[in-house]
Order: sequence, then structure tokens, then C-alpha cells
Amino acid sequence: MAVIYMDNNATTKVAPQVLEAMLPYFTEHYGNPASLHQLGMEADERLSEARTVIADLIKAMPDELIFTSGATEANNLAILGLADYYQSKKHILISGIEHSSVRETVRRLARRGYEIEEISVDGEGFLNISELESKIRPDTLLVSVIYANYEIGTIQEISKIGSLCRNKGVLFHSDAAQAFGRIMINVLTENIDLLTINAHKIHGPKGVGALYVRKGVKIGKLLEGGAHENNRRPGSENLPAIIGMAKAAEIAYQNLDAEHVYISALRDRLAKGLLEIPHVFYNGPKGATLSSRLANNCDITFQYIEGEAILMHLSLRNICVSSGSACSSKTLEPSHVLTAIGLKHEQAHGSIRFTVSRYTTKEEVDETVRNLKEVVELLRSMSAFIPEKHSELLNPDAQTFYKER
Amino acid sequence: MAVIYMDNNATTKVAPQVLEAMLPYFTEHYGNPASLHQLGMEADERLSEARTVIADLIKAMPDELIFTSGATEANNLAILGLADYYQSKKHILISGIEHSSVRETVRRLARRGYEIEEISVDGEGFLNISELESKIRPDTLLVSVIYANYEIGTIQEISKIGSLCRNKGVLFHSDAAQAFGRIMINVLTENIDLLTINAHKIHGPKGVGALYVRKGVKIGKLLEGGAHENNRRPGSENLPAIIGMAKAAEIAYQNLDAEHVYISALRDRLAKGLLEIPHVFYNGPKGATLSSRLANNCDITFQYIEGEAILMHLSLRNICVSSGSACSSKTLEPSHVLTAIGLKHEQAHGSIRFTVSRYTTKEEVDETVRNLKEVVELLRSMSAFIPEKHSELLNPDAQTFYKER
Repeated sequence: MAVIYMDNNATTKVAPQVLEAMLPYFTEHYGNPASLHQLGMEADERLSEARTVIADLIKAMPDELIFTSGATEANNLAILGLADYYQSKKHILISGIEHSSVRETVRRLARRGYEIEEISVDGEGFLNISELESKIRPDTLLVSVIYANYEIGTIQEISKIGSLCRNKGVLFHSDAAQAFGRIMINVLTENIDLLTINAHKIHGPKGVGALYVRKGVKIGKLLEGGAHENNRRPGSENLPAIIGMAKAAEIAYQNLDAEHVYISALRDRLAKGLLEIPHVFYNGPKGATLSSRLANNCDITFQYIEGEAILMHLSLRNICVSSGSACSSKTLEPSHVLTAIGLKHEQAHGSIRFTVSRYTTKEEVDETVRNLKEVVELLRSMSAFIPEKHSELLNPDAQTFYKER
Repeated sequence: MAVIYMDNNATTKVAPQVLEAMLPYFTEHYGNPASLHQLGMEADERLSEARTVIADLIKAMPDELIFTSGATEANNLAILGLADYYQSKKHILISGIEHSSVRETVRRLARRGYEIEEISVDGEGFLNISELESKIRPDTLLVSVIYANYEIGTIQEISKIGSLCRNKGVLFHSDAAQAFGRIMINVLTENIDLLTINAHKIHGPKGVGALYVRKGVKIGKLLEGGAHENNRRPGSENLPAIIGMAKAAEIAYQNLDAEHVYISALRDRLAKGLLEIPHVFYNGPKGATLSSRLANNCDITFQYIEGEAILMHLSLRNICVSSGSACSSKTLEPSHVLTAIGLKHEQAHGSIRFTVSRYTTKEEVDETVRNLKEVVELLRSMSAFIPEKHSELLNPDAQTFYKER
């Protein structure tokens, strides 16, 4: 039985056209871009072309991009690199729903004496911008806000945040690991100073990403070595992966509108089906704010059961979903994103993220809904805590409690 | 006309079997090893298998390996990671012929108050071990010596250095980016505490490497984020590349003896041909010490002309060679490796590295020698400084001056 892959915010299948574009760079055009001979110079030209393709897509200049091993390294480079260069400012603001590669990196700075503050988000994950404004200080080095959340899909009002930061003279970084290739991004009009992007969430290869650093913004180096990437990131450039990233991004943006229609229709069909199950609720933007949600993302809390149990049962039925971010899926902590939007620990633990892609079909969506209904019923029937036996849970007020947030 | 690739210490062509092994991981088994569903758990198993394959080859335990984005990151992780964990010792010893990713990383520590000393090497690049012994102090944190040099191929007496360090209670790191897959390495018998390895020098993919850290040795983290790699290196594991690295290493070690015979015969044929050209000399181990040289490496100084001019002329003839390491080939500084073994600046600038591989043929070697003879004659005929017009250069004493070093 074929696998139904509903975990496209964890990682994606490499698109056939992307793999095809990469192949010659493994065995034919394998030169090191730093080498001065024919094969090296050719590799260096292809590297420049890929850099230009990617820069154009976000309205950056090619030399404003630094290729990295992925989004984690780019987030680290942005934060630690700025801290290294601008040593007099030691106050950093982040949202309460950042990825661990931002959260843990600012924590490292906190251990070195930096003051880190988290800006709250509302029940759908939108940043409280007036709180942000009130917390910016003269010694604020950086505001870092995730462009689109990996778990609940919330797309922030990046333009507003960007112009606020620019007006206040504070640097603004955004982790667009989930947004790049899924939403139009314009670093100029959105006043973004640093932007993290990567490839493997949009049918590109793993092991490659980039950090956009606006001309004029200075950063220190994370790694030491050769003079690659304008002396900002050493190590032989991973050309096949960079070629793949450029191709994946190009395809994603060429087909953005059509894919948005296709993917969001699938996601809405999925959400509709799942919301028919009793005692469930939808996390993240919905209704009036649905358009500010990643088109492929659906996050549902199934009350009174463990998300992990759902995940395992679905896995046995060849359906791949995620309970919280894959990055933290091996820890027992509830997702900080879900607690930040107001879920209780047990609710966060009962949450499942379904993320579709251009390769998902309507049949797969229906199959997923059908299986979920069975699995949830099965798990609830085994549960010591059976909602049907507790009349207070069956009255309409109790159910709407979760929808009210 | 087909390219003759003589730059296999810069990077290599991915072997067809390696690419074949990688392919399913782009489009079929593309799960994130951190995900708990079927596709993720399968990816995690394949990751464990690859880790075991690579660990076995160097006699390490699987959980002693940390996968990285390459050798540069692994060298940084080793040095900065140790400095982060063992903060009381602030003296580091390195050889005078380390790669920039070691040299520049210890320089960063020097800016933070560490004392860095370089141990000299002899005229063939062998470390002065008694000098090393005399310089180890109670506050010495680390000795870092490159296993086999990327430019002149010198293979150090790693066992001797390892047991010296172990006896003195000092940690020993070796950068084996050029040695892994080309020489048998045994971290146990050689008393190696940390070892840097990578894939793209041995017909594996770019963008992947690993750091071996002996059980019991503690290191801090370079990057912050998820709990990947036993909480020592965050970021979604680059599984296709790791699979490729394991395959490349497996092939290299399976055929090590036969390839050593084939490759060193080619190299010796190349060296013999090139040494027929007047006013040239061979850098690195030769004669009695030739067996302590990377089998594929030949480094020659062509006096009275610029290496870069030779490189360009050869490139126009579709022959790819290197003048110094690719990593520094875009700077105008002479190679510090060549000056460390006693070459004058102008001699270092006239040096060319030829590095063959299992894919090099005898015909390509002969073609290279033929072209070199023409190119050198051409360049010398254009040179303002024509040796034949200076009788002092033609007398045997003057010629041996360069050989005497």
C-alpha cells in the first residue's frame, strides 16, 4: 500500500525536475567553484546563476545571499553573527512561536548576558505588534519573528513588523524556512534586514539554505576557514544542492497562484472532514484569517487522546503526519507553539499537524479523513476517559469552550 | 575535447555507484529522520546504518560520530567545541601546514586570549615530533595535526603523535579530510580523540562530513536548535548525502590496496615525466619517504614562471590542476604549506598540484606531461627572466640550490 505523506512541513519529496537539474553536478560538472581551471570556473558561473535566481525571487541582490547548510545554520548565523558584530546592544526580541534554531540560539546569548524577551501571540498565533513596539529599546539589537509558523501555519504581518523595526532603527530578521517558495516575499518592501530560507520544505534537497543579509548590515562569521561566500561562510560550496534549491524555488514561484488554489482546497477539504469528528478543534488562523495561513497546513487537536498514539496508528495505516514539529518530536515536551496560543498541555499533546503538498491528491485527503475517524474512535474507545460518559462534555457550552479562544 | 581532471584533492567526481545509492533518498525515502511515522523511522534506520558503516571503517562506535555539513564545520566544531567545554586550558598546538579551517579557527581563539603555537615541519612536511613534545604544557588543551596534507600529500606519523598526546594527557584532533578513504585509519590504535572526515574528496557528495569524538571527550555545540545528532548538531539530517558518504567510504576502503597500486603508479609516472622538465623540483615526500605520501598527490615547482599562468594555459588545453589549495586559490598569498617546507615566495607561486584518481588513465597522464612541457617552454620563452641567458643558473651548483633544502 502506498504511503500517504501528510508531513510536508517537516520535509518534502524532491521534485523530479529538481533532481534532474542536480544530476549533472554530481558526475559531470563536479568542479569546485573555488578552483581556477575550466571545471572550477564553470562551477562558479553556475553558482552565480543559482544565486541570482534565488535573490531575484525575494527581490534581493545576489551578493546579499550567503549559502548555508540549511535554515538552522542560517538562523544561527543571523543571530550570532549580528551579536558578534554589534557588541554594544544586548537586548533581543523574538516571538513566542519561533523555531528551536532561533529560540535556542538566543538562549545561548542569554547565557552570555543578553536580555531576551518573547512577544506574545494571540490565539491564532499572530504577533502582538503593539507589544513589540512598546518593548523596543535603544539597546535592542534585533527583532526576530518567524515569517510563517511551521506548526500552525500563521503568516505574520511581516510588512508591518518590518516598517516598525526600520522606523525604530532596529534590525529585523525573519525565519522564512516555511514561507520561502510558498508565499511571495519581498525583502525591500517588507523592510527585512535578514531572512532565512531553505530548500527541503519546497521539494528541494536537504542540506542547503541561505541567509539574506541586506547590504550595509554587518555580521560576524559562524565558521572559520576559506574565503568562500564573500568571506562570510567557509567550506566548498555544495553546488548540486544549490542548483537544486534554485530550481525548486523557481518552480514554486512560477506556479505559486495555481498551487495555492489547489493546495488550499485540499487542506480545506481535509480540515472540513476532520472537524466532523467530535471533540476536535482547529489550531491557528481560520475563518476570517484563513488567508493568513500557509495553504498547506492544517493543525487539529483531538481531545482526550494522545497525539502520539494517533500518529502511530496512522503510521501503521501508511499515513504520515506529525505531532508537533519533527525537530522536537523526540522530546516529551508539549509544543511551545501550541501552549503559546493558549492550549493546555494535554490539548497540545493531542494535536496533529497535517501538511499537504502539490503531490497530495483528493483521494489521499479522503482516505486520511476516513482513517482518522476510525483511529480516533478506536483510541477513545480504549481510553479510560470516555467523553460520552461525562455529560458535562456533551453539552454545547463545553464544546465551544475550545472554539472560543 | 574531454577534460583531463587532475584536481582530485580539491574535489572529486561522485562515483556512479554512490549517486545510485543516493537517488532513492531524494524522491522515495525522503522522510525526515526526526519524524516518528513510517517514512521518518525508516529514514532514521538508514541513517543509523550509514553511521555504523562509516564508524566501522575507522574503528569508532556509531554514536561517536557527529554528521556535519563538511570538513570545515567538523574542524570548527572540534576546536571551538572543545574550547567551549574545557574553558580552563588556553594553549593550543597545531602544525604549520594545517588547512585554513583549522588555522583560522585557532586564530579566532587567539583573539579571545588563547595562546596558539605552530609546530614546524621539515622540508617534506613531516611534523617535528620532539618539538611538539617539548611544547606540550599543563595548560595545553589540544594538539591538532592534519592527517595527510592537501597540498603536498605528507602523511604524518599519527600513531606517534597520538600516543605522545595520550601519554601527556592532551587531547588530539586530526583533520583527515584528505586521508579518510585513502589511508587506513584506526582511531583506537592511533589514539585519536577527534577526527574530521568528509565525502567529496573520495567520490562522495559535497556538503557532508563528520566529526569523530571519542566517548568521554566533551564538546560544546557550534549551532543551536533541535536535538539532532544526540543533541550535538541541530538541523534536519542530510540523509541522501550521508548515504552517499557511507557508500563512497565503503567503496574506497574495499578497494584500497588495488587502488593504491593503480593510483600511485599513475602519480609516479606523472612525476617522472614532469621532472624531466628543466628547473623543476618535487615538493613533499619523495624517495625514501614516498610511501608516506598520499598516493594520488604530485606537487611540482616550475621555477621562473607563475603557477597561475601554467594553470590558465593548461585550463585552455582542458587540463585541470591547482596552484595551491582551491580554498585559497582566489587570494594572492603564497601557500603557507609551501613556505612552511622552506620554499621562497616566488617558488611557492610557481608550484602546481596534480592530483589523480581512480578515474585517471595512463593516457591522461602522458597527455598532461606532454602539455606541461609545451606550456612551460612557452611561458619561459615569454618570460623577461630567461634562465638560459643567466649562466649562473645553468651551473650545477645553482640548480642544486633548490634541491638542497
